[in-house]
Amino acid sequence: MQNLKEIMEDVRKLFDEEQFLYEPTELYEPIDYTLRLGGKRLRPALLMATNQMMGGDTTKTRGAALGIETFHNFTLLHDDVMDKSPLRRGKPTVWTKWDENTAILSGDTMYALAWRYFLREPHDGLREILDCFNETAIEVCEGQQYDMNFERRNDVTLDEYMMMIRKKTAVLLAGAMKIGAMYAGADRVSLQKIYDCGINMGLAFQIQDDILDAYSDEGTLGKPVGQDIRDHKKTYMILKALELCPEGEREYLQQRYDTPEHDARTVGEILKLYDTLGVRKAAEEKTVQLLTQAYEELDGVDVPDDRKKPLRELLETLSGRKK
Amino acid sequence: MQNLKEIMEDVRKLFDEEQFLYEPTELYEPIDYTLRLGGKRLRPALLMATNQMMGGDTTKTRGAALGIETFHNFTLLHDDVMDKSPLRRGKPTVWTKWDENTAILSGDTMYALAWRYFLREPHDGLREILDCFNETAIEVCEGQQYDMNFERRNDVTLDEYMMMIRKKTAVLLAGAMKIGAMYAGADRVSLQKIYDCGINMGLAFQIQDDILDAYSDEGTLGKPVGQDIRDHKKTYMILKALELCPEGEREYLQQRYDTPEHDARTVGEILKLYDTLGVRKAAEEKTVQLLTQAYEELDGVDVPDDRKKPLRELLETLSGRKK
Repeated sequence: MQNLKEIMEDVRKLFDEEQFLYEPTELYEPIDYTLRLGGKRLRPALLMATNQMMGGDTTKTRGAALGIETFHNFTLLHDDVMDKSPLRRGKPTVWTKWDENTAILSGDTMYALAWRYFLREPHDGLREILDCFNETAIEVCEGQQYDMNFERRNDVTLDEYMMMIRKKTAVLLAGAMKIGAMYAGADRVSLQKIYDCGINMGLAFQIQDDILDAYSDEGTLGKPVGQDIRDHKKTYMILKALELCPEGEREYLQQRYDTPEHDARTVGEILKLYDTLGVRKAAEEKTVQLLTQAYEELDGVDVPDDRKKPLRELLETLSGRKK
Repeated sequence: MQNLKEIMEDVRKLFDEEQFLYEPTELYEPIDYTLRLGGKRLRPALLMATNQMMGGDTTKTRGAALGIETFHNFTLLHDDVMDKSPLRRGKPTVWTKWDENTAILSGDTMYALAWRYFLREPHDGLREILDCFNETAIEVCEGQQYDMNFERRNDVTLDEYMMMIRKKTAVLLAGAMKIGAMYAGADRVSLQKIYDCGINMGLAFQIQDDILDAYSDEGTLGKPVGQDIRDHKKTYMILKALELCPEGEREYLQQRYDTPEHDARTVGEILKLYDTLGVRKAAEEKTVQLLTQAYEELDGVDVPDDRKKPLRELLETLSGRKK
């Protein structure tokens, strides 16, 4: 059995040794750039750690591991175009380094490459696995659309927000874990628990991201602090703030958040209001609740406890993550 | 056995009866709009006609038929964003009717929907079929990149152009036919002939498109005449014109084509030069040569001649097509 370090090392090697540069270079250079930017490769690691937990042969999941990360990076690439984000992992995004058309087409190609990786390895249950991957992909697109819709609305509820981040973020983490388990031939009950664990973990992960965007610093984040505020993003923070806010002051807060062009001063003002209202504490409590639920699902999976160790460690890294 | 009319009717019904509208509507309305714009549904018809020719049960290819057309429409949607095309089939393109972000994300979702359709029907050879679909998709992306690259170069050769349209246009027609044959369990030799038939047909199809863009009228085309010239597209027409042009006049022609902002007068001048140089005739001869090759490949497929009838009729419609 591999420990977490060995799994992460395997994943790292997988990407280091893979070739992404082909002709025409105008198409593949941005793909190579994106896939070599690094990141923590969480999704392939989750996939492999879950596969091992369920008794699989992780060498058979290499295609899926490459596929899930390539898909994830494709979504980031297109999201960056749509959100006009200048930076990703502290480096210029593809649409700024090249141009929008390059970002659109290289993204499309990455999506196709993800499928190439998934199709690399035969498996008796391949159709079900691909179906799981594809339905996840559709939900991720829907999540991004809801996210964009919410930017134009100012009556978004926390429930709607949770639905959105479930699709945009959580289903891909949960899908990675479930696919890893499917490659190991796991039973339906285990698949459901693993999926639910991933969903709760993913929701917690996104709320932590919202917290970090407001309270971390630019060097650690790789992007400006309070970018979500500048983008008028609906986040757990602002929606919780509006919920906690005394009714008479809600309109003022909303109005301040909607400031057309935010600067350091207006961002600072919003952050101060978050403090006053106890938003950070509320968000952290919600995170703990979701993480507890995630670990309970994992505890319920019927395999020896030592087999769960690498996955549990990975989830702990994820939940206590420092960007 | 179904005749061509029945196959086309089946394909039409397939799309008429399929639901494309889901939540969030901001995501699915542009998809519904795109997939209901119509068009000739050539690729699903080719897929089904080839399937029937090889003795398949066409009802088992409905998912693939929906999938190949949905994929095709996804590529058009993203191409329209990249090319800034205002019209498609005489109607506003998605990025003009909605916006660029909608076009990007709805396109991504259509690509995922294409996969959903392909995954709908189980098949013993599904992995090989999906692999064929996916490698085709990658080539289509590469073709679009070459097309964009060529716009920025003025030393593109006719050979390079043929390579580009092979990827951008021909492989999807050939892929549709091959996939249809794969569903029927066709042997390798037949698959190769069918694929080569599709490639030659596709190349002819694109050159005819280039001819039509220059010589048809706006009402028939659904877009302005000479749009390729306005877009400084490398087409068979201009590349052949440069080849046929006396050396001393080549620079002048190139320079006129490169005019930053074309208008009716400059487009008219280019068209006149095409006439003088005999470009239309050369393009039509090339088309005939490719079509002859395509029919020879079809003739070589070892099945009774009457089984080929609907496919041959379809290819004839395609090659003598009036837009």
